[in-house]
Amino acid sequence: MSLAKPRTMPGVMELLPLEQIAFQDMLDVIRRNFERFGFLPVETPAIEFTDVLLTKSGGETERQVYFVQSTGARKQGDDPDLALRFDLTVPLARYVAEHERNLSFPFRRYQMQRVYRGESAQRGRFREFYQCDIDVVGKDSLSIRFDAEIPAVIYAIFRALKVGPFVVQLNNRKLLRGYFEALGIAAADQQMAVLREVDKLDKRGVVQVKQTLAAAPFSLDGEVIERLFALVQMRSSSHDHALELLDSLTVSNEQFEVGRQELKEVLRLIRAFGVPESHYAINLSIARGLDYYTGTVFETTLSEHPDIGSVCSGGRYDNLASHYTRSRLPGVGISIGATRLFYQLREANLIGLKASTVEVLVTQLNESELTRYLALGAELRAAGINTEVQLESRKLARQLQYADKAGIRFALMLGPDEIQKGVVAVKDLIKKDQYEVPRAELIQTLKVELAQAMVMGP
Amino acid sequence: MSLAKPRTMPGVMELLPLEQIAFQDMLDVIRRNFERFGFLPVETPAIEFTDVLLTKSGGETERQVYFVQSTGARKQGDDPDLALRFDLTVPLARYVAEHERNLSFPFRRYQMQRVYRGESAQRGRFREFYQCDIDVVGKDSLSIRFDAEIPAVIYAIFRALKVGPFVVQLNNRKLLRGYFEALGIAAADQQMAVLREVDKLDKRGVVQVKQTLAAAPFSLDGEVIERLFALVQMRSSSHDHALELLDSLTVSNEQFEVGRQELKEVLRLIRAFGVPESHYAINLSIARGLDYYTGTVFETTLSEHPDIGSVCSGGRYDNLASHYTRSRLPGVGISIGATRLFYQLREANLIGLKASTVEVLVTQLNESELTRYLALGAELRAAGINTEVQLESRKLARQLQYADKAGIRFALMLGPDEIQKGVVAVKDLIKKDQYEVPRAELIQTLKVELAQAMVMGP
Repeated sequence: MSLAKPRTMPGVMELLPLEQIAFQDMLDVIRRNFERFGFLPVETPAIEFTDVLLTKSGGETERQVYFVQSTGARKQGDDPDLALRFDLTVPLARYVAEHERNLSFPFRRYQMQRVYRGESAQRGRFREFYQCDIDVVGKDSLSIRFDAEIPAVIYAIFRALKVGPFVVQLNNRKLLRGYFEALGIAAADQQMAVLREVDKLDKRGVVQVKQTLAAAPFSLDGEVIERLFALVQMRSSSHDHALELLDSLTVSNEQFEVGRQELKEVLRLIRAFGVPESHYAINLSIARGLDYYTGTVFETTLSEHPDIGSVCSGGRYDNLASHYTRSRLPGVGISIGATRLFYQLREANLIGLKASTVEVLVTQLNESELTRYLALGAELRAAGINTEVQLESRKLARQLQYADKAGIRFALMLGPDEIQKGVVAVKDLIKKDQYEVPRAELIQTLKVELAQAMVMGP
Repeated sequence: MSLAKPRTMPGVMELLPLEQIAFQDMLDVIRRNFERFGFLPVETPAIEFTDVLLTKSGGETERQVYFVQSTGARKQGDDPDLALRFDLTVPLARYVAEHERNLSFPFRRYQMQRVYRGESAQRGRFREFYQCDIDVVGKDSLSIRFDAEIPAVIYAIFRALKVGPFVVQLNNRKLLRGYFEALGIAAADQQMAVLREVDKLDKRGVVQVKQTLAAAPFSLDGEVIERLFALVQMRSSSHDHALELLDSLTVSNEQFEVGRQELKEVLRLIRAFGVPESHYAINLSIARGLDYYTGTVFETTLSEHPDIGSVCSGGRYDNLASHYTRSRLPGVGISIGATRLFYQLREANLIGLKASTVEVLVTQLNESELTRYLALGAELRAAGINTEVQLESRKLARQLQYADKAGIRFALMLGPDEIQKGVVAVKDLIKKDQYEVPRAELIQTLKVELAQAMVMGP
């Protein structure tokens, strides 16, 4: 029989078990913190109807969509009426509009699922990847206070992920747009075009962006560009500094003033939420690519790895689900691209491979004692310890080798001597240590060691 | 603007938040127990190449496949070369063959992901559903002992799910086939056809199946059918009874004998794994629909809900990945169809809606004290308590109503009186109780209450 070559399509991340454990660990940290802040889980189907998914006509999004068709529908020659979701925001909008009557508002939901984009294959670009989103969606209105809660969630997550220093960077689209208006850049589409160029500041650098803005079709004059850059290059270094910078802006524009007051209120509340001032700052260059943000916008950067870019972004929007309902649903949310984040953190050596989820291997010293080993395994499991029992007979050296390679921390040995003495020999494969423990104290000893490792690392 | 009707395709399960919490709880129980037994997590992409996925030509499977095509590929008019997985077994085979050199054998993996089948829409049938699989895959060989570990995992999971009494039912395909051979049903395809009829025993009943077997194309004579039924109607009521029944079978056939010895060994070890004899039994009618099981086969039934059918099935197979590699990879595994299981358990009132993942609502009695409420929220979260702080001003009655409807257990009230007395008023919305706790003892009190609820129910 001829064999099919076992392979996956480019642009997916498939991991070996120890890598998967580290990734799962990251997802668990994210989920735990989403729940800590009172966000509720939602999952939606990967497949949506195309007329629901592709409400915005044309554009880049549509070109990247994966269409789906059952065998039956294909045979009939129909155009596909199904497609895979490309983000979690459109499904959220559909979900809220569909279940509006059964939800409490403000609706606080988290969602951690895979999304699909027909991107061109490229290192570090993914066609299938996890997004981990939270959103708070209000009915008719939503207090600005929710904008300040988001950085508190980001702070909790990235601190727990132990990725080194990071900063949640804040801006406000009203402030930005009002300032532009005051500079004479009044038309919404021109503002948007300039904002898009400004958004490329980190990638293309000041000189290039200035050149672009001086040239057609922007044709901004030198002073306007300078005043623009005075704004977008503002970065605060402390809480009070942020307020000072905001107060130092002298612009007479109503929308600007609304944005400035919003941003000041958000800063005040972020502090009240307990986020240390080292972990948030204003960065008035942030515009976010998406056109639908209308107020606060967020990005999160790792201070020692600026090349990674934003690891968590989002913002405030005016109306979530205008394509599906006439209800007005303002909201604020963020998204973590977990697959890309994991890939980047591994490339930057910020995530190592953890110990296995398997904590104990009960070795098989004596085949005739298998029943005893099985009973020991059952006892450990009942105490909440993840345990594998060596079922096949092998040399002990090979069993220990296996445990070591597999990242299993403890190997237990129970031979005739230990049985007679009423002890268990414990080999700690991470501390490279071996000792005997009285049989009756085994579980307590292992639990203490494992709890310590969880808090302090092994 | 005209609105798109927000809706999902038929055959998917989309849940409201409290339902989703109950479902997530079920998945967590399954995952925790898979890990308890030392199974390692694997995730594979939802999209696979069609030539990898559809190695078996034709058949029902292919008709139910969802094909996938990016916008670009569609425009070129190509036939789709991608499709969504329809189970986790084919992806496992591909994974093991692809990563063979980097895996340790026996390879113990668990996988909990959604799969896709273009089924005809029908109540209780799903086009997208979770499968939760474990498999132990050996290289060249795999001890029968692993077959006995599987019922121990099933026992741990379904006990933890609290779904009432259940029984893991066991059979062995070698025993079954050997017995058939001894009855003169020798050809493999005829055996398979008879086994398929036998597999319908629970659904169609004895009389109908007997009639089918007496008629063409089977044309079995009465005595053969009687002896067949003597076998397939055997059910054990205890461990010793199972062994007695097996010993009572008088058949002279080599394959039968091998199967009988395997089944006896599996029974012996299941007991050693600590599974109570009330939770396993032999049921010699079980054949399983799939043709590739070669030894032990499992089904799991809820004693008080036989109509639900098997909630967890699987078995032993000879060679996992013959389509992708020349390595011989025997294995044993089971699958839980979690979406259907959840649906059925809810229909049977065996799963209620749990409390929310949100454990505490810090109410807002006094807008001017918001900073205090935010600090209290941060403190509770730091202690591991899932906490929402009421951010918008509303009447207290409405805040309590919200918490109650949302399944939040505790509402905390901190007004001028409480602040002055140094206490917090705690409203327990599940116990319908209200009391004051000294501020300094709040966290300890809540943690004790929540821990008790986890063990005993609220």
